[in-house]
Amino acid sequence: MEMTFSRQVERWDIFEAICPGKTAGNPFTDYTIRGTFKSKNETKSVDGFYDGDGIYKVRFMPSFAEEYHFEITGNFSGEKYSGSFPVTPASVNNHGPVRVAYTYHFAYEDGTPYFSVGTTCYVWELQSEELQKKTLETLKKSAFNKIRFCILPKHLDYNLKEPRSYPYIGKPMDSSVLTKENFHEYDGNPPGNEWDFKRFNVEHFRHIEKCIGELRNLGIEADLIVMHPYDRWGFSMMDAECDDLYWNYVIARFAAYRNVWWSLANEYNTMRQKKTCDWERYAAIICEKDVYNHPRSIHNCGVYFYDHSRPWITHCSIQKFDIYKTTEFAAEYRVRYRKPVVFDEISYEGNIQHDWGNISGKELVRRFWEATVRGAYAGHGETYIHPDDILWWSHGGELYGESPPRLKFLYRILSETPGPGLKPLAGPSWMDPAATVEELFGTSGYYLYYFGFLRPSFKDFYFDDTNEYEAEVIDTWKMTIKKTGVFRGRFRVDLPGKEYMAIRIQRKKNG
Amino acid sequence: MEMTFSRQVERWDIFEAICPGKTAGNPFTDYTIRGTFKSKNETKSVDGFYDGDGIYKVRFMPSFAEEYHFEITGNFSGEKYSGSFPVTPASVNNHGPVRVAYTYHFAYEDGTPYFSVGTTCYVWELQSEELQKKTLETLKKSAFNKIRFCILPKHLDYNLKEPRSYPYIGKPMDSSVLTKENFHEYDGNPPGNEWDFKRFNVEHFRHIEKCIGELRNLGIEADLIVMHPYDRWGFSMMDAECDDLYWNYVIARFAAYRNVWWSLANEYNTMRQKKTCDWERYAAIICEKDVYNHPRSIHNCGVYFYDHSRPWITHCSIQKFDIYKTTEFAAEYRVRYRKPVVFDEISYEGNIQHDWGNISGKELVRRFWEATVRGAYAGHGETYIHPDDILWWSHGGELYGESPPRLKFLYRILSETPGPGLKPLAGPSWMDPAATVEELFGTSGYYLYYFGFLRPSFKDFYFDDTNEYEAEVIDTWKMTIKKTGVFRGRFRVDLPGKEYMAIRIQRKKNG
Repeated sequence: MEMTFSRQVERWDIFEAICPGKTAGNPFTDYTIRGTFKSKNETKSVDGFYDGDGIYKVRFMPSFAEEYHFEITGNFSGEKYSGSFPVTPASVNNHGPVRVAYTYHFAYEDGTPYFSVGTTCYVWELQSEELQKKTLETLKKSAFNKIRFCILPKHLDYNLKEPRSYPYIGKPMDSSVLTKENFHEYDGNPPGNEWDFKRFNVEHFRHIEKCIGELRNLGIEADLIVMHPYDRWGFSMMDAECDDLYWNYVIARFAAYRNVWWSLANEYNTMRQKKTCDWERYAAIICEKDVYNHPRSIHNCGVYFYDHSRPWITHCSIQKFDIYKTTEFAAEYRVRYRKPVVFDEISYEGNIQHDWGNISGKELVRRFWEATVRGAYAGHGETYIHPDDILWWSHGGELYGESPPRLKFLYRILSETPGPGLKPLAGPSWMDPAATVEELFGTSGYYLYYFGFLRPSFKDFYFDDTNEYEAEVIDTWKMTIKKTGVFRGRFRVDLPGKEYMAIRIQRKKNG
Repeated sequence: MEMTFSRQVERWDIFEAICPGKTAGNPFTDYTIRGTFKSKNETKSVDGFYDGDGIYKVRFMPSFAEEYHFEITGNFSGEKYSGSFPVTPASVNNHGPVRVAYTYHFAYEDGTPYFSVGTTCYVWELQSEELQKKTLETLKKSAFNKIRFCILPKHLDYNLKEPRSYPYIGKPMDSSVLTKENFHEYDGNPPGNEWDFKRFNVEHFRHIEKCIGELRNLGIEADLIVMHPYDRWGFSMMDAECDDLYWNYVIARFAAYRNVWWSLANEYNTMRQKKTCDWERYAAIICEKDVYNHPRSIHNCGVYFYDHSRPWITHCSIQKFDIYKTTEFAAEYRVRYRKPVVFDEISYEGNIQHDWGNISGKELVRRFWEATVRGAYAGHGETYIHPDDILWWSHGGELYGESPPRLKFLYRILSETPGPGLKPLAGPSWMDPAATVEELFGTSGYYLYYFGFLRPSFKDFYFDDTNEYEAEVIDTWKMTIKKTGVFRGRFRVDLPGKEYMAIRIQRKKNG
């Protein structure tokens, strides 16, 4: 069998070389494979991985539209492989990977602003084919452009069924003993699990790659949760050697997907076997092995934020720690961390018994807007009780809530920002949250005021005596935008005295 | 002219002696008058005051139903007066003054619990007679049993008209120059004011006494705001000598009313001429001169709470300092101050442009309940735009909001507490606020859970295996109470998955 490889690839798409190699012993641990890629503008080396059946693969994402030469080395084979391939310009919907931009925001590598409107479906990709298909259809209709999900299966209330596949060769404990009352007794690594943590189930990873690719085709970033505590298989309790093997394998397989983000863990601090030195070691592996520098963060439970000032953390991934006040802290976190602030968990729209999963659509949308006018981003989730325990938050499927169309409307408002993003500003009253464009000297003449659950009947404004300003009243719930006039000097904008209103004011360009 | 005095008085009502005296010079400063009252159980001395037209008065509130003897002394007259009077038992609606009870709560002196449901009408008593009458009619229909109002007139947005009277002899600045745009330019003591700060306008004080008495007759505590910063007459900027004269006069006149509370100031920290030593001096005057020990506190603006641990402060009078989170801090304040926690200002139901005056009735009622289940008390106010600028918050009149009937319903729930008040408790989930009865060992078997804007579809409970518990689902907005059953051991209470629900659970008495 010969090596085969992509004969041509689009900029920021995936080059793949498929190489036959040794099968004796354990190919996941006993052999190495590495590819080195050179073009006029870059030289990068990446690890390949064993994909089963005597096949090794090397993947690479080229950052330039030019000719690349590659060499594949390692003891996986007695042979050396090399070749060349041209990289064509990105097609119209391919803007490259997402990067941090203007300190507090994101943009695709081609410069297009990326206004993050995320959602969470922890293990959507481990459900039935039919349900996965439904999830993708739902996502296609939504505004969500980032989805958080786990590589490993999930064990928690409403998550007691078997996943479609496991990441390792072996067999799980018998899940027929689980009930809604006793499931916590099986947390961790109960008897009955038999896994070989040094032999990956390649089909599990291939499937996740397919899902990442499908998300990419929908323009959605895959915020991969690489570790998490909701476990009854022992995957959260492996030793350092197996953890590192896992991290290296994940990066070798997934990093070439331009839409990948790394979330080191969900609720990292509830994984009691892991210490700070472990998280820092995983971070060092990503920083070394992910040559594309995908966004990296780590998600907390309660007040135990990871230190987001760590240099390897590209943006804050925050779970709210308070029932009442969540994204309203955004301006403080911006000052504290000087990074993009993403509230990935701010309670879910739903009606389950848990406090984190039963706010209204109105409250969820309010929290998104409070983040927005403070120059931060938020994430959605939905947990409505379902006869078959199919809750969007874990399983995907359909959305039943009131928030998704309003988040689409918010995305429209964000898209109309005349700049890379918003920054917080004092409003017409000192406590009103408001935003202007993120720029050094605030010359945009763009102002967005949001009143949340407050219900003013009017607000007075004054910017200067010379320019004209156009004011619009935005009903963030009814999703309407009403022009109220063009003003000079002191002026008043009338409001309906209702909740969830915003005012957008923009300076008119000089004649 | 002879002295006249009350021939008989009810316990906790007002004895009054009316004495002719000197008029030469300035009777407000040049003469003293003092009454000493003796009965089997108490001996108390109180200052009298000059009431104009050569008349001095001494007032006294007896705390025991028994024979009292009194003597009136001082240089106000060459004569000495004395006499006796019997004190009859309190009538059925007279429970005496309100006292702190069980550290965190209040009770009338006869032991009846006092569950505070306050409102604010800053200068209701300085409006037209017709409007005052309307205010009293509105109060009569409401659940409000405490009202905060000022002795001095108020100058602020929506408060630009002349009060019915002034506390001093003299004349005010011309208020016809005031507009909604310029009124702040007249803050403080602008030109045009001409007052004699050593001569009180006795009619002003007589009128306020009448109002205090009317409130008392409705069973409403008069939380008197003695000083405040919303001023265009210079009353907030007097020197220490005049301030002390004012304090002594106020106490001599009002302290014998059993329903009086002392609020040293509204937003004390915005009165920039006053320093901590001034507030402490006023407090010392009250502690010395108010021999009845009426409740004493002082109200803040923003995070600048007065140190509520000061021994003279009987209870915390708190204005929220955050737009989003207000009474949810109650449990912390209880721990910090070990006193009753009263949130006297938590934003008003309304639709004016100011952030402190445009929340919904739902949000206001929610804040009351959040206080309740944390063993604290809250205060109402209303600021709906009105064609004649008559806003309940300052002027009284009619209530237009949705909260008052719901506060009446909350008062009913409070009244049904089998004890002196509630204390915070961990709920069925660790973040659910809940309450039980304030008692040392928690044996009441009473539990009140409140879910606010969360919308659980059910909650699971377990207390013990032996007792029976009766559960009720309370819709705090629709004002309904539904019995859901009597349970033993583990049990589930179903909820409608709506906002603003509560669950009350009470242990059944054994057989």
